[in-house]
Amino acid sequence: MSLAAPRYAFAAPFETPPASPIRSLMPYAMKPGNISVAGGYPAQELFDVDGLTAASNQVVARLGTCLQYSNIDGQASLRTELARLTAERGLVCDPDTELAVTGGSQQALALISRVMLQPGDHAIIESPAFPNSVQALRYTGATVHTVPSGPDGVDVDALDEMAGRIKPKIVCVVASFSNPCGATISRQRRLRLLELAVKHQFLIVEDDPYGELRFAGEMVPPIAALAEGEARHWAVYISTMSKTMAPALRIGWIVAPAEVRRRCVGAKAADDMASSAWIQEVVAQYLADGRYAQHVPRIQAAYGSRCDAMAQSLTQSLAGRIVFNKPEGGMFFWARLNGDIDATRLLPYAIEQGVVYVPGKVFYADPAQADLYAMRMSFATMNESQIAEGMTRLGRALDACEANAPVSISLAA
Amino acid sequence: MSLAAPRYAFAAPFETPPASPIRSLMPYAMKPGNISVAGGYPAQELFDVDGLTAASNQVVARLGTCLQYSNIDGQASLRTELARLTAERGLVCDPDTELAVTGGSQQALALISRVMLQPGDHAIIESPAFPNSVQALRYTGATVHTVPSGPDGVDVDALDEMAGRIKPKIVCVVASFSNPCGATISRQRRLRLLELAVKHQFLIVEDDPYGELRFAGEMVPPIAALAEGEARHWAVYISTMSKTMAPALRIGWIVAPAEVRRRCVGAKAADDMASSAWIQEVVAQYLADGRYAQHVPRIQAAYGSRCDAMAQSLTQSLAGRIVFNKPEGGMFFWARLNGDIDATRLLPYAIEQGVVYVPGKVFYADPAQADLYAMRMSFATMNESQIAEGMTRLGRALDACEANAPVSISLAA
Repeated sequence: MSLAAPRYAFAAPFETPPASPIRSLMPYAMKPGNISVAGGYPAQELFDVDGLTAASNQVVARLGTCLQYSNIDGQASLRTELARLTAERGLVCDPDTELAVTGGSQQALALISRVMLQPGDHAIIESPAFPNSVQALRYTGATVHTVPSGPDGVDVDALDEMAGRIKPKIVCVVASFSNPCGATISRQRRLRLLELAVKHQFLIVEDDPYGELRFAGEMVPPIAALAEGEARHWAVYISTMSKTMAPALRIGWIVAPAEVRRRCVGAKAADDMASSAWIQEVVAQYLADGRYAQHVPRIQAAYGSRCDAMAQSLTQSLAGRIVFNKPEGGMFFWARLNGDIDATRLLPYAIEQGVVYVPGKVFYADPAQADLYAMRMSFATMNESQIAEGMTRLGRALDACEANAPVSISLAA
Repeated sequence: MSLAAPRYAFAAPFETPPASPIRSLMPYAMKPGNISVAGGYPAQELFDVDGLTAASNQVVARLGTCLQYSNIDGQASLRTELARLTAERGLVCDPDTELAVTGGSQQALALISRVMLQPGDHAIIESPAFPNSVQALRYTGATVHTVPSGPDGVDVDALDEMAGRIKPKIVCVVASFSNPCGATISRQRRLRLLELAVKHQFLIVEDDPYGELRFAGEMVPPIAALAEGEARHWAVYISTMSKTMAPALRIGWIVAPAEVRRRCVGAKAADDMASSAWIQEVVAQYLADGRYAQHVPRIQAAYGSRCDAMAQSLTQSLAGRIVFNKPEGGMFFWARLNGDIDATRLLPYAIEQGVVYVPGKVFYADPAQADLYAMRMSFATMNESQIAEGMTRLGRALDACEANAPVSISLAA
């Protein structure tokens, strides 16, 4: 009897699992002594361990009441707290009919994608974008199109033209401090997105993991918060605790029109039954304790200072050889090499020098559109002196690459 | 501008969200004084609060190291413990290439469904079955067929015939103490299922939430544990901590051939990124502490005693009016009214008398096949005297229904 694996008949989106170029860099990013600006992780040393421990202790004291199945849409305590927090961001919603707890914003995006999309349907996402967001759309079997995004966010005129042509059911953007671009969509463009949603009858889905991490400039309300009249039916907002509290909680939420939200909850019932009632109670307790409101400014301050350090050291160490827009919040710089050397060619030299970044091309759903000279650099997880040292190393790497020096690191294309 | 909700173009499986007849009974089940055998929940008073608190305290003491993103396939500590536990059940697997942590067994089923199925594909599930399992299959857009199941589990000859005809990609069964039937598939039938999987090239997916809750008879190994040679490529095993530790953990796992498992992990990356590292560490710690091995026998003993009580009181209070097979484990009795009155007609009388069960028909994916006289009764959450009282009330309800007495409760059909 043969022991060779058979050729399984996988569903089409799973026939060829996508490579994960970011994950393949992790061994280098984790190597002691190396400086990594490659990760999309929040800063571990900033986690509010004391506050989370206090919340956890309160929940464990009543643990016997937190061990059953949760409501599919989430614990009432947490929905109430999340609705309050969302209202502080400018978006008022009913915690019972318009808000549901999800397994991070990733699950929120997966649920709304599944509820709306099937093979033959179309979706649009800005480009560049976070690859897992693209995958959530693609795994529905729908066709995913991209519309260019830049320092001011998605190109609304290109979107208007494309939406008229392909009739997307959903359009996805990160409106504040996007990953990878660090871009923020202006209020005017947000209003335009709402107009287009009504005109073309698509759901405009804003994924907002970073919006609270603003350390400069003026707050712009969530897209759904700006919706009036008919536009209210087409605006969906999703967010997460992963960047402000901790990723390990796996707590996010979705705010959507009741008819849409109801189906997302149905999809969640078949997906994982509910999120952990235990962890939901910890998050609700942490929010009710007021620790969240105290903690977020600490992250803002730290990231703001690290962002300044990156801008300064990029200017010092790579003057004239790299261009960038300094973001007003979030975790990411989107920088561009302006010589002949592209970001993929530079990478082994950088790793050899002990600094790791992510080539921008991995964030393009359509490789043909990729900006080969772009690179994503996170300022979140390194302190100011590490960042300065990292940019010095990057300068040295660029020197070596320009000199066509031999390099010991070999990476998969 | 109109404020009426537009007609959204949902994906086909979400156009008409399924009703949840079990959930609609919950207000009656929760009413103080009522006795509910309707729930699918484990007994809350049996949760090992002390053991979980001890594990939680150990994890919180090192909380700063448990707050980042987990590996998508789960924390190494937990995968190791789960592989050990699975081996104790007879199924040996590699924790790094064949096992992955999931959000309960529900997510495991959702992932394997998504990886294998798309519109145009076919799947088979035993009938009756847990409605959320059916939904996980249906939400892929595939066509879901049913094969009859009974006291000995799925009808393997009917499956053989159907599989030859419709070419399913996956076949799903609960092989031990099924929900709702309480049925266990014999070793011989399990071997036959493996033969059929090889013959028709489908994945045989065993969902095993209840297998450890055996309080009588002899243990039968998981289907995948019996697979030899080529059959090893076609056997998938999924399980969960929900019935033995606590549902609120939302920790389950899947054991699958490496090629299949790898794609399930890819699907999970786009679904929710990972399960909570915090909770995973709590579960791993609890298992490593040896508390799990100490605790499961306590549940077995309690459920065994409650099962005996239900059998006795059904015999006493409804002698000759109801038939049932006494299960050897799990949580459920599948009983059948043997007069003219069906389970839906009886239900309002039962609720009026203060006892709530679930009519069996809600467990049939194809309503045309439903056994209208069947009812699912859980013995897990009520103690022996409550069960006895509940069956007395059921007898009274049947009296009233037979007498065609007026009834104050009105339920949706």
